[in-house]
Amino acid sequence: MSIDHGNIRWNGWGWTAHKDKLAEQDVLWTWLAAELGMPALLATPARPLESVAIAASRLSGAERARLVEILGADRFRDDPFERAFHARGRSYHDLIRLRAGELSVAPDAVLYPRTTEEVQALVAACAEAGIAIVPYGGGTSVVGGVSAIQGRFKSVVTLDMSVMDRIVDIDPQAMTATFEAGIYGPALEKALLAKNLTLGHHPQSFEFSTLGGWIAHRGAGQGSNRYGRAEDWLVAAKLVTPRGVLQTGGFPASATGPRLNDLVLGSEGVFGIITEATVRLHAAPAASEYYGYLFKDFASGIAAIRRAESDGVGATMLRLSDQIETKFYRAFGTLGKNLSFRDRLAQWYLDNRGFDEKACALIAGFEGETTAVADARLQFQVLAKKHGAMALGEAQGQRWKEGRFHGPYLRDPMMDRGVGVDTFETAATWSKLGALHVAVRDALEGAVRETAPRAGGRGIVGCHVSHSYIDGASLYFTCIFPRQLDGELGQWRTIKKAASDAIIKNGGTISHHHGVGEDHLPWLAAEKGSLGIDILRAVKMALDPKGIMNPGKLIPG
Amino acid sequence: MSIDHGNIRWNGWGWTAHKDKLAEQDVLWTWLAAELGMPALLATPARPLESVAIAASRLSGAERARLVEILGADRFRDDPFERAFHARGRSYHDLIRLRAGELSVAPDAVLYPRTTEEVQALVAACAEAGIAIVPYGGGTSVVGGVSAIQGRFKSVVTLDMSVMDRIVDIDPQAMTATFEAGIYGPALEKALLAKNLTLGHHPQSFEFSTLGGWIAHRGAGQGSNRYGRAEDWLVAAKLVTPRGVLQTGGFPASATGPRLNDLVLGSEGVFGIITEATVRLHAAPAASEYYGYLFKDFASGIAAIRRAESDGVGATMLRLSDQIETKFYRAFGTLGKNLSFRDRLAQWYLDNRGFDEKACALIAGFEGETTAVADARLQFQVLAKKHGAMALGEAQGQRWKEGRFHGPYLRDPMMDRGVGVDTFETAATWSKLGALHVAVRDALEGAVRETAPRAGGRGIVGCHVSHSYIDGASLYFTCIFPRQLDGELGQWRTIKKAASDAIIKNGGTISHHHGVGEDHLPWLAAEKGSLGIDILRAVKMALDPKGIMNPGKLIPG
Repeated sequence: MSIDHGNIRWNGWGWTAHKDKLAEQDVLWTWLAAELGMPALLATPARPLESVAIAASRLSGAERARLVEILGADRFRDDPFERAFHARGRSYHDLIRLRAGELSVAPDAVLYPRTTEEVQALVAACAEAGIAIVPYGGGTSVVGGVSAIQGRFKSVVTLDMSVMDRIVDIDPQAMTATFEAGIYGPALEKALLAKNLTLGHHPQSFEFSTLGGWIAHRGAGQGSNRYGRAEDWLVAAKLVTPRGVLQTGGFPASATGPRLNDLVLGSEGVFGIITEATVRLHAAPAASEYYGYLFKDFASGIAAIRRAESDGVGATMLRLSDQIETKFYRAFGTLGKNLSFRDRLAQWYLDNRGFDEKACALIAGFEGETTAVADARLQFQVLAKKHGAMALGEAQGQRWKEGRFHGPYLRDPMMDRGVGVDTFETAATWSKLGALHVAVRDALEGAVRETAPRAGGRGIVGCHVSHSYIDGASLYFTCIFPRQLDGELGQWRTIKKAASDAIIKNGGTISHHHGVGEDHLPWLAAEKGSLGIDILRAVKMALDPKGIMNPGKLIPG
Repeated sequence: MSIDHGNIRWNGWGWTAHKDKLAEQDVLWTWLAAELGMPALLATPARPLESVAIAASRLSGAERARLVEILGADRFRDDPFERAFHARGRSYHDLIRLRAGELSVAPDAVLYPRTTEEVQALVAACAEAGIAIVPYGGGTSVVGGVSAIQGRFKSVVTLDMSVMDRIVDIDPQAMTATFEAGIYGPALEKALLAKNLTLGHHPQSFEFSTLGGWIAHRGAGQGSNRYGRAEDWLVAAKLVTPRGVLQTGGFPASATGPRLNDLVLGSEGVFGIITEATVRLHAAPAASEYYGYLFKDFASGIAAIRRAESDGVGATMLRLSDQIETKFYRAFGTLGKNLSFRDRLAQWYLDNRGFDEKACALIAGFEGETTAVADARLQFQVLAKKHGAMALGEAQGQRWKEGRFHGPYLRDPMMDRGVGVDTFETAATWSKLGALHVAVRDALEGAVRETAPRAGGRGIVGCHVSHSYIDGASLYFTCIFPRQLDGELGQWRTIKKAASDAIIKNGGTISHHHGVGEDHLPWLAAEKGSLGIDILRAVKMALDPKGIMNPGKLIPG
């Protein structure tokens, strides 16, 4: 285990020691209150763990003894910190509950297996005793993927994979590596970079999420244009199911019927526990360059990205913020600063070039072999200019890269001040993207107004294109809103439903990279069809006939 | 239907009118006999259809009437030509049987639906009556994928999709297109090229295979390095199953659990019939350039391809023949010709540069936007030279491109002369590829010697790398051998078993792009595991509980 759980927050994001600099700037909060139509922000601190009651573990003495027998006493945990830490993931509504000390959902014990054989023994013991199992990687799910739901069982344990983080094999000849699934992002990349290799999978949760989690929720890193999504880089997986061990894949490509890797990808723990995985590697990039651009509006930025995909420009990332997100970032960057003469000159220049309040910022990243990076960068530069963009230079891009994992840290200080923030993401083909953007934004703004604690309350709804493909792209919305403290979960459900309904109605997928978990279940059948759900149920029945694996997630009950 | 079945061979490959020029050169056949250790070639012509007996259709009058009621009399066929034409695919052993007039396996009728609704009605009628259904696209399977096996049912019909070949929608904005699944390759590309778009899927069967077939067997075209495999370009599919219509996908990417497209891909007709599919497009390439190279040996050629993948050189195809295939092609190219002074000079030059009998030819293809093609071509050229290769120029590449679909035509004239030919293909990670190549070649050579009709008989076993990936590549073997006329199927089984056992033992997949069908079934559990097979059975049961869909294929009985 490369991270001590004691150093990360049980009811918030990331390192306990992390202090966000932005959070210390009063001017920011004053500005935010005004933007949200709130006369002032509130003080809504989280309850400390010491003051929170947690029910006694429901495991019987015999059950406890059996699990301890398999693991040893040190890797069987049922103290309040471990149970609270593993109660839920890190979604907005998870945090509402955790910060309020609402721990009615919490595992009866947390198990830390060290080997695939131990996982097999634990699964067999739980199947026999009728104990539900929640597989847990980094616990960073924002869709309720690791909520310790007992389902129809009398108790539930969380199986934390973080001790299973060994490097099994790195094969530079084959360009593949095999790891135990509990390895965290930084440890995995460190091992690969030592051999001048990389997986290149960097979701925003990178520091705290695990290889197994990336596969289980079918994730995508920020550089997926180059490095691919989990389904692109997964070569082979080992899945411990109640019916035995499933070993899938192992080939660069195959035509032997349905690829079973694709049932492990996105399985979200409901079929079994991923204990080991082989991944496809890249050479560590000799060059890694990120640049900022400014487009005159969202549509011209989208057109440029679409063209870059169609022309096969080898970008690693093309991330385009819409006008609201662009304005929000600029406000954050300049608040409390006396604008220099140069800054004001730049603003004057922009205004005169037609970059008004509709302007949209884009970060373009290029990684790889030096010549290829230079070629791709130039190709994109020419293309961006053709679409009316202005180059902002490398400093802008570098700043984005340095802060690439910092976003979630802002959520906790907002929640301390009566402000809610949630994210919603989807993907659609290019021809649906414009209407989808408007519809989801409008739905979010409407739902926030409807649920605002007082008249005039409103949200900030920004969006960016985060991942692009030859046939379409993802849209990632961030919605900041004044919390309705009298009925926070109801408010969240209203906002979530508005966004999700708008996504489905406008041809988007209900999740591009967050997963299904509990939160997206109500919309899954609309996307997969009832026969599609039957297929998932059939696979579930074949691998987990008693239904002990991660109840309440992915498969509608 | 863009091809009249009357113009293609019912017991051989391709157009009836096609005359192969090579087949007319006696010097070729004399050379081949000597290479195979045969004193002379034999005359082993195929039986004409008129002389072949085919049993009466086993459909009852009522069953026939019900199917005619759905389709009309003109799209219900049970004449001998239609039944013989659809009896089997076009594998070597299919041809042995068809050429001998062995039609004990043949459909009791051939159905030509025109709409998804008709397919639904046919599936419902057959499920009710207990009639097996064999879905049929172009019928070019070389793994027994369309054999008209009745399984445990009293009769079997073949559902030929070739009338369902409409263009449903081409969306240049989204870069996607939707077609009915029975459309043949040339018709599909013609429709796309008219809008300056392409799918770029060109298997060797391109002229006679269909979109639905490409998806059903999880195929790969010759240019898959650029255009991707079926699993890369399939966006959405409509599958008519006995339990209803499954509509999958529709997004550029998604994280909503297992991707159901991946159960349609490789489903080989056992879950249902693909009636419609949406595919991801590319801009029609502005440049399309193919070049020949000569490497000093197979290993250095493989190293160059591996490096090209690792460096991200944007090649469309890198096809490397081993020394035997290289020699064979050179022999075919020069047989019966008086070598010019220039040819002999070229040979002298090669000999003196270290290109001896171990030399291996590579064809490198580059397609796409003009600048990108120029960049990639140059990148590969530098890399090839670093690996000791000599550039042979564009004429060599162009020749390959012009003959890219001609290979299978040589099989019939060989079979007319007592010579057998079959192909075997696999894929593995780079670190296993060298040993896999040697093992399969040795196994094939051994099995041919063992089954030769007389002492001294031997095979020609050539191989090429046809598709490459960052973590490995495919190997495609062609085995030419003297036929054991007393026991041809036994001989084929011995050869097939030797190759397949060697593939599995050396870490290869049992098929890289041909599929499973009947032929690879015995090795499937070794690759997928018994739990993997259970999963396929569970999905089958969810979609086709009576088991009427394509019995005997993909799923072990």
